[in-house]
Amino acid sequence: MKPAGQIDTESLLRVCPAVSRPANPGYGAAGRLTVTAGSVSFGAGQPAVIAGPCAVESWEQTLSLAQAARAAGARMLRGGAYKPRTSPHDFQGLGEEGLRILHAAGQAVGLPVVTEVMDVRLVETVAQYADMLQIGSRSMQNFPLLVEAGRSGKPVLLKRGMAATLCEWLGAAEYIALQGNLQIVLCERGIRSFAAGEYSRFTLDLNAVPALREATFLPVIADPSHATGLAARVESASRAALASGCDGLLIEIALQPETCPPRCDALQAITPETLRRIVRFIETRRESMDWLAGSACPSAPDAERSPRPRSLESSS
Amino acid sequence: MKPAGQIDTESLLRVCPAVSRPANPGYGAAGRLTVTAGSVSFGAGQPAVIAGPCAVESWEQTLSLAQAARAAGARMLRGGAYKPRTSPHDFQGLGEEGLRILHAAGQAVGLPVVTEVMDVRLVETVAQYADMLQIGSRSMQNFPLLVEAGRSGKPVLLKRGMAATLCEWLGAAEYIALQGNLQIVLCERGIRSFAAGEYSRFTLDLNAVPALREATFLPVIADPSHATGLAARVESASRAALASGCDGLLIEIALQPETCPPRCDALQAITPETLRRIVRFIETRRESMDWLAGSACPSAPDAERSPRPRSLESSS
Amino acid sequence: MKPAGQIDTESLLRVCPAVSRPANPGYGAAGRLTVTAGSVSFGAGQPAVIAGPCAVESWEQTLSLAQAARAAGARMLRGGAYKPRTSPHDFQGLGEEGLRILHAAGQAVGLPVVTEVMDVRLVETVAQYADMLQIGSRSMQNFPLLVEAGRSGKPVLLKRGMAATLCEWLGAAEYIALQGNLQIVLCERGIRSFAAGEYSRFTLDLNAVPALREATFLPVIADPSHATGLAARVESASRAALASGCDGLLIEIALQPETCPPRCDALQAITPETLRRIVRFIETRRESMDWLAGSACPSAPDAERSPRPRSLESSS
Amino acid sequence: MKPAGQIDTESLLRVCPAVSRPANPGYGAAGRLTVTAGSVSFGAGQPAVIAGPCAVESWEQTLSLAQAARAAGARMLRGGAYKPRTSPHDFQGLGEEGLRILHAAGQAVGLPVVTEVMDVRLVETVAQYADMLQIGSRSMQNFPLLVEAGRSGKPVLLKRGMAATLCEWLGAAEYIALQGNLQIVLCERGIRSFAAGEYSRFTLDLNAVPALREATFLPVIADPSHATGLAARVESASRAALASGCDGLLIEIALQPETCPPRCDALQAITPETLRRIVRFIETRRESMDWLAGSACPSAPDAERSPRPRSLESSS
Repeated sequence: MKPAGQIDTESLLRVCPAVSRPANPGYGAAGRLTVTAGSVSFGAGQPAVIAGPCAVESWEQTLSLAQAARAAGARMLRGGAYKPRTSPHDFQGLGEEGLRILHAAGQAVGLPVVTEVMDVRLVETVAQYADMLQIGSRSMQNFPLLVEAGRSGKPVLLKRGMAATLCEWLGAAEYIALQGNLQIVLCERGIRSFAAGEYSRFTLDLNAVPALREATFLPVIADPSHATGLAARVESASRAALASGCDGLLIEIALQPETCPPRCDALQAITPETLRRIVRFIETRRESMDWLAGSACPSAPDAERSPRPRSLESSS
Repeated sequence: MKPAGQIDTESLLRVCPAVSRPANPGYGAAGRLTVTAGSVSFGAGQPAVIAGPCAVESWEQTLSLAQAARAAGARMLRGGAYKPRTSPHDFQGLGEEGLRILHAAGQAVGLPVVTEVMDVRLVETVAQYADMLQIGSRSMQNFPLLVEAGRSGKPVLLKRGMAATLCEWLGAAEYIALQGNLQIVLCERGIRSFAAGEYSRFTLDLNAVPALREATFLPVIADPSHATGLAARVESASRAALASGCDGLLIEIALQPETCPPRCDALQAITPETLRRIVRFIETRRESMDWLAGSACPSAPDAERSPRPRSLESSS
Repeated sequence: MKPAGQIDTESLLRVCPAVSRPANPGYGAAGRLTVTAGSVSFGAGQPAVIAGPCAVESWEQTLSLAQAARAAGARMLRGGAYKPRTSPHDFQGLGEEGLRILHAAGQAVGLPVVTEVMDVRLVETVAQYADMLQIGSRSMQNFPLLVEAGRSGKPVLLKRGMAATLCEWLGAAEYIALQGNLQIVLCERGIRSFAAGEYSRFTLDLNAVPALREATFLPVIADPSHATGLAARVESASRAALASGCDGLLIEIALQPETCPPRCDALQAITPETLRRIVRFIETRRESMDWLAGSACPSAPDAERSPRPRSLESSS
Repeated sequence: MKPAGQIDTESLLRVCPAVSRPANPGYGAAGRLTVTAGSVSFGAGQPAVIAGPCAVESWEQTLSLAQAARAAGARMLRGGAYKPRTSPHDFQGLGEEGLRILHAAGQAVGLPVVTEVMDVRLVETVAQYADMLQIGSRSMQNFPLLVEAGRSGKPVLLKRGMAATLCEWLGAAEYIALQGNLQIVLCERGIRSFAAGEYSRFTLDLNAVPALREATFLPVIADPSHATGLAARVESASRAALASGCDGLLIEIALQPETCPPRCDALQAITPETLRRIVRFIETRRESMDWLAGSACPSAPDAERSPRPRSLESSS
């Protein structure tokens, strides 16, 4: 029996050779692939914050939140045009009109944009407007969608399924990677546990962060908004995620969440002021991440010998 | 229906009035009770680190780890004399001999000590040697034990049961508090989730930290050793726990975990060097925790009106 | 607070009025919609067993298993042509060739067939060959796929997502139903819990069966193969599912699972002999399900007043 | 890696040799130890039902429920005198007075009684009144209590911890067995999962039943009352548990649960009428359990060769 907690390297080599660290020793013990979407990069230097509305609701709403996000220090704009909703009777997003608004708002403030694509038939359309495609938690194992996202050539933000193992998550990334697209950012967004509901909607699983660092060279960010589901928990979760070694955050904001609640996930939107404090937490740290290298992979002798990653050339 | 994630204040008032924040407005929105055990305090000022061996195995082992813990900046010494083991065939601890060793080692280096008590008949004995009694995860709802720990007059470290809700956890604290003993520190030590085993033994649940800040005035620490079960994850988890707002950490160490593994939980023991880095993470921050107050309890109008806590003196 | 365990009727009325029992009092307290696919019906009379290979691998394999399934008393043939696999390096199914084989094998032995569709672009193709479309666990919230499955006019077998709440599951059914297609069978297939892996792959959640009976009028079956992941547990799980009130079972079989293992999920395939025993368990019971009516919904006064269901004809 | 779902025999041999089947081949592939408490036996012949109030509240209540249980076909009376309650402010049971009442009620109707002991100091007292000691879910890893229960010489009903692995559960049984007491009945009572709360309080885990049959020779029963937490789910869960191969049930009843609710766990008490239907489900089956032998342990060649169990002579 593998000791509880230790990564099963054999499984990684079999399930996801293109994205696993053990199969790509060129990245060394803690080196990350840099994923770039427009002006923002993940996995290089300081963590980057993505912020914006849960759903694009109107031009005014989106522009004002884009401005607020920019002013608070976010580096990328988020916003849903196609919303995966539990009930078909809930607001489903503005569709292509939403994509146009998001793109224009990003242009207006000078931020690249990321938005979710759920329908394999719409990958091309979404890719026209977005700098990065988001694969949502419910779509993590929508394999045809992963393949098309890979083919789009766009960087992909791959959220963890709410009950996905690390192996399943990296297997999903492998579907994208096999299309020649390694521009993948993994996003921990909270798992379903018995605790969910009592004091948070999901359970933010930060043990996954150093484990992913060991298992893959892909950058890892966290979504404290969905992981908590409650605005009052987002700042604490953001700080914890950053301190654990995340390469970025994905955060939902609203100008006046209480008096003028957004049309979806209203309870988890934080104000631009709180967002500003979170960005400042990043700015005042500016510390090295060398500790992660040391703790995650005590021995990686191949790193020096193999200066260029194996997979970057070969897998694409 | 209560929105998912929001604390159910009514339940708190019914289940645990003595330890819940809503029933004790004197503590304000984020004020904590200061719990003091010998020279160390929790809930006042900077987070405090407790470190030491999983189990007391010998005088030499314990003394050398006490010295190492002290040198690394720990403020309290831990060590098990009575070990709760899954199998009766596993090492069960040295018993009272272990208590004597732990106590002497703490004296030798000038650190107060905390150790687990499992058997209600041994509370008095353990209290003779320990500055603080630890109630382990498996004993969180051992109600007779909680009552005796409360009566001992010693401060109590109350670990969360591995599948305990927040309400059950605070209900357990209430059993202690009703004996007139509010010197209780809560310790998040990882929950059982579907993810447990693949890359960590348990799932560190940091969403509980701001939730507890809202629900109770008791200090909260985290145990990154049990929450991860693997040395390579402990530093990341420690940093995350501290950034989330914890008042301290409980960490297992060993001098040479790989060449000379401890007799229990060998895989999770970190070296004194890693411990030193974790303490330095605390020292270099020294930031205010005001953000927790703001985010956890946006409105606490009663705080001003009721300058002194109902139950005990406040730390704020 | 809603008492733990009690169905939240308000949520049902909001999330899934088309498929919920409270919104469709014509079905009475326990009446079910009859869903018919070719010669087999679910929700009327005795439970029906669906059996066949995990994946269609060849004409010989599929035909022999179809014959064995038929001989053992199964009423419908299953078999995957498009397989959702964790890794892209695993066998992905034979695609349309697999559909042709499955359809022909079903014709040869006189059984209707059900097979999974994962790709929204393939719904039409799959619908040409299949008597019933299966939406797999990983696709339960693939909303565009649900819509197209609804539009196909084919009956749909909707598996529960491995971490889906009952509300999310019925919300998924609502997406299908809103396309004018109420021919939906729900399939419990095991949830992810901390217990998963130690002695079964998933945790069969039979508490969901009476809860679904209360929440919806759609028939409910169980998949003991995926819920256990191990052949040695399938018979016990099948019997339990039937006794709990299920309207059918979905079971994977192989002729010689040990000497000639199938290409996917080899460990969970049972032999035709075990299948025969499971069918016999149904045949020898032939008892009334009136007890389910009584226990699930003690009072349903509207049933008498509203003799015809709002949405479709009732089975009761 | 051990395939998911397969019992880890090596762990069993190390953790719990005294109670594991692999270490005691004399029991054969499916043979069970018979555990006898007064006039009732578990593991031999037909499943036995234990029924009674959650808590002993008064002589009248207990006697009338004992009569009702007896009339409905129950073979043993249950009732709590010491109640483990989440909050110290909740009803804690009548204590020794409750023991006296329970014992007298059992005598009056001719049923042996089982009741929970939580406090290691009260084992002797409880053993004076009870025919069987119950170790509750919260006490499953109260190791000193397990040892004293073992020493009492009384048969022990060992409930599963709500987040206990099978290995931990059998390790707990081993603590009892090492005191020379193999009269242990295991009781599955529902686990904590993400599903808990929405439509049941816990998740009844019947996959554990055939797994336990493979891992141990101890009899296994189920507690559908706690596993569901809701009266409307108890009958379905009872039937499922029996069909899965359980050796008995532990059920809470009340005469008029709605108009005159019991003082604890009021929502899960069923009426004697429902209890009668459950007992009838057992009586009308009277089928062989040979299927369990076949499916759980396909090969057990040692069974014939070793006619008497290795570990104890006396219990069979």
